[in-house]
Amino acid sequence: MNAREAAREDSLDRLFSALSDRNRRAILAQLMQGPATVSEVAEPLQIALPSALKHLAVLETGGFIRSSKEGRVRTLELREDAFRALEHWVAERQRYWHSGFDRLEAQFLSAKKPKNSP
Amino acid sequence: MNAREAAREDSLDRLFSALSDRNRRAILAQLMQGPATVSEVAEPLQIALPSALKHLAVLETGGFIRSSKEGRVRTLELREDAFRALEHWVAERQRYWHSGFDRLEAQFLSAKKPKNSP
Repeated sequence: MNAREAAREDSLDRLFSALSDRNRRAILAQLMQGPATVSEVAEPLQIALPSALKHLAVLETGGFIRSSKEGRVRTLELREDAFRALEHWVAERQRYWHSGFDRLEAQFLSAKKPKNSP
Repeated sequence: MNAREAAREDSLDRLFSALSDRNRRAILAQLMQGPATVSEVAEPLQIALPSALKHLAVLETGGFIRSSKEGRVRTLELREDAFRALEHWVAERQRYWHSGFDRLEAQFLSAKKPKNSP
């Protein structure tokens, strides 16, 4: 694995880790409606501020959100990067797994066919 | 959150956790070529058998693979379930995030427009 491939795998590790928690998925769902502050994000989830900040850090590292600070208020918004990378990863694999599942299904159907059928 | 929603979130947590490791993604890539034994999966990754078994357990819990044992040989193959769930999750969100990014882009472009332009 060269350095570029390793960096891509690092970034996919962080991307999927970021999505592996329901609170973080809920934060993304909220930010799809538009930018929000940290407390606006923490409140509906009924989690403490320190927990919310941890989740936001993971989402930021995963490439899903960016934050900006004006005075004492930190505002969060979605970034395209991780979503594009996720779509790309899924699309790249779709034709392989679908062709694989079709092949499996064909094997299953032919295995079930009675011996004396045409 | 009702019990059914909670179960769906549990299953998404496991699905994304399963994908958050490059060795597990490599195992899936290999199994897309067809079923393989545990040692066939462990060898190209140059990981020890106990590590391979741990990764396989996570993939099985995540709904990506199933295994069957004949004599002393355990064979692994892909399952459709997790892939379908992943596709569904991405597809459900695609229109939201794309419309969101289009809106952001429009705001950015209108903000950059000189004041005296038509």
